[in-house]
Amino acid sequence: MGLSEKIQQRESGILVYGITPPKAGTDTEKVREIANKQIERLKDLDLDGLILYDIQDEASRTQVQRPFPFMETLDGLTYSKEFLSELAIPKIIYRSAGKYQPDELTDFLTSPDMDNNASVFVGAASKGQSVTLSMREAYELKKQINDDMPLGGVTIPERHMDKGDEHLRVFKKMEAGCQFFVSQGVYDVNACKNFLSDYYYHGKENNTPLAPILLTLTPCGSAKTLDFMKWLGISIPRWLENDMLHSQDILQKSVDVCVESWKEIQSFAKEKNIPLGANIESVATRKVEIDASIDLYHQIKTTMS
Amino acid sequence: MGLSEKIQQRESGILVYGITPPKAGTDTEKVREIANKQIERLKDLDLDGLILYDIQDEASRTQVQRPFPFMETLDGLTYSKEFLSELAIPKIIYRSAGKYQPDELTDFLTSPDMDNNASVFVGAASKGQSVTLSMREAYELKKQINDDMPLGGVTIPERHMDKGDEHLRVFKKMEAGCQFFVSQGVYDVNACKNFLSDYYYHGKENNTPLAPILLTLTPCGSAKTLDFMKWLGISIPRWLENDMLHSQDILQKSVDVCVESWKEIQSFAKEKNIPLGANIESVATRKVEIDASIDLYHQIKTTMS
Repeated sequence: MGLSEKIQQRESGILVYGITPPKAGTDTEKVREIANKQIERLKDLDLDGLILYDIQDEASRTQVQRPFPFMETLDGLTYSKEFLSELAIPKIIYRSAGKYQPDELTDFLTSPDMDNNASVFVGAASKGQSVTLSMREAYELKKQINDDMPLGGVTIPERHMDKGDEHLRVFKKMEAGCQFFVSQGVYDVNACKNFLSDYYYHGKENNTPLAPILLTLTPCGSAKTLDFMKWLGISIPRWLENDMLHSQDILQKSVDVCVESWKEIQSFAKEKNIPLGANIESVATRKVEIDASIDLYHQIKTTMS
Repeated sequence: MGLSEKIQQRESGILVYGITPPKAGTDTEKVREIANKQIERLKDLDLDGLILYDIQDEASRTQVQRPFPFMETLDGLTYSKEFLSELAIPKIIYRSAGKYQPDELTDFLTSPDMDNNASVFVGAASKGQSVTLSMREAYELKKQINDDMPLGGVTIPERHMDKGDEHLRVFKKMEAGCQFFVSQGVYDVNACKNFLSDYYYHGKENNTPLAPILLTLTPCGSAKTLDFMKWLGISIPRWLENDMLHSQDILQKSVDVCVESWKEIQSFAKEKNIPLGANIESVATRKVEIDASIDLYHQIKTTMS
């Protein structure tokens, strides 16, 4: 069953991998080299899709300095079309709506290259960020121009801890056209279960079927990556942070933790028939961390059969 | 090995049961009846001790109305001496230090009835509460008058979520003479692990051996008991509250949850050699809830062998 069908049928077990395109301005030869490595790593995996992120500078979200510098990347659609066509799986192209003019988003939505692809619209990083297109406008445009294309949204379970309304945001996005959701990196099982629980009971009480939620799982190979994840807003329970920082092998520890977290949340979701999938990524670019994400993929895959 | 020895040797697996004495003013015959029921329930259990709480009116701690009315109880030592002597296990008599005059506490500490017993000193419920004796004074008095008696303290892992210093409070109490700690009711595994983690790493970094921590596990038989637990300051993760309130059998569900929580924290503590024990109690007085606590005892007991 293809990605689009799985999404429409609200299946559990959708498994995708997320990458960031190479940074803008990279030599074409170098880009090809990077792409070939990515193809090599991913071509034999049984993935439902490949996510290509659309990075935005989130500096407006926080006063804390970004542990890794922000860099513009190549456009996800262009990169995947020109360099990753060997990977015969649907691409899920992220679009930070606020970065584009209406006609740019129109071009994207009508591009024949998007035929078997999906997209995820991302809102502004903060209220202070100036945007060219609001999320409402982007959803409206998409509905008018390419209603059939599978569209996803972002969900941040951590937000649920303070505000308790993340499930309502998700239902609102579903009304606006989102058919699946990709979470922020999950290290806080409790925050995730709290969100899923309210999502489940609200859907049940209102007779609204649930859209698949893809949990993002991401290895962490160093204290600096851990800092970066925290900067991104990923909540890491104190005990877990202690154990990771004191670990002999933080990377392996983080993979173990991701697998344990996934299993706990998966069993919670199974009990309630919440459609749950996973998105494996590596926020860092070091080879060992990327390799760990492939190891993580294999471990997650075995839990899905 | 007796309770006192287990405490001194910082053993894991200390298992106690906690009860509240009958309310003050109850007819002696009625008190005897209650006591006999408690003896009947507890006499065949393999317990290291019996906790007798010293309830104080915590109304000064919060603006929210107490779901169950506050009632003075009989004195724990008097009650246990006069009615529970058949239970040939050490009693752990709680003392809310702020309720007693120095000479009352002196009498308590020098009472021959305390010979095989232990005590736990409890501080004021809030800074606003007027006290006759500060904790510092109580600890000082105890050290002077009966240094040998095993003394415990209270720990509230939930406090660690906001302030992050609960482990430091525990170490401070250890300096003041506490040799073991009894937690507040545990429904938030994460909060508990966060506290234990900082407790562990701080002890390790400072070469300070850890005192046993007894986790209080308490079944919850109704939405009203759940409210009461929340009123007492017990943190219950959103997903767990949802599941309990939607459960067909909230009491059985809560017992299952306590067992699962215990196992998760126990395995966390074992890995780090944190001495962990349990205190089973029932905050409610309905027979089914008390029976459930006995069922819970048996399930916890099997994990300790």
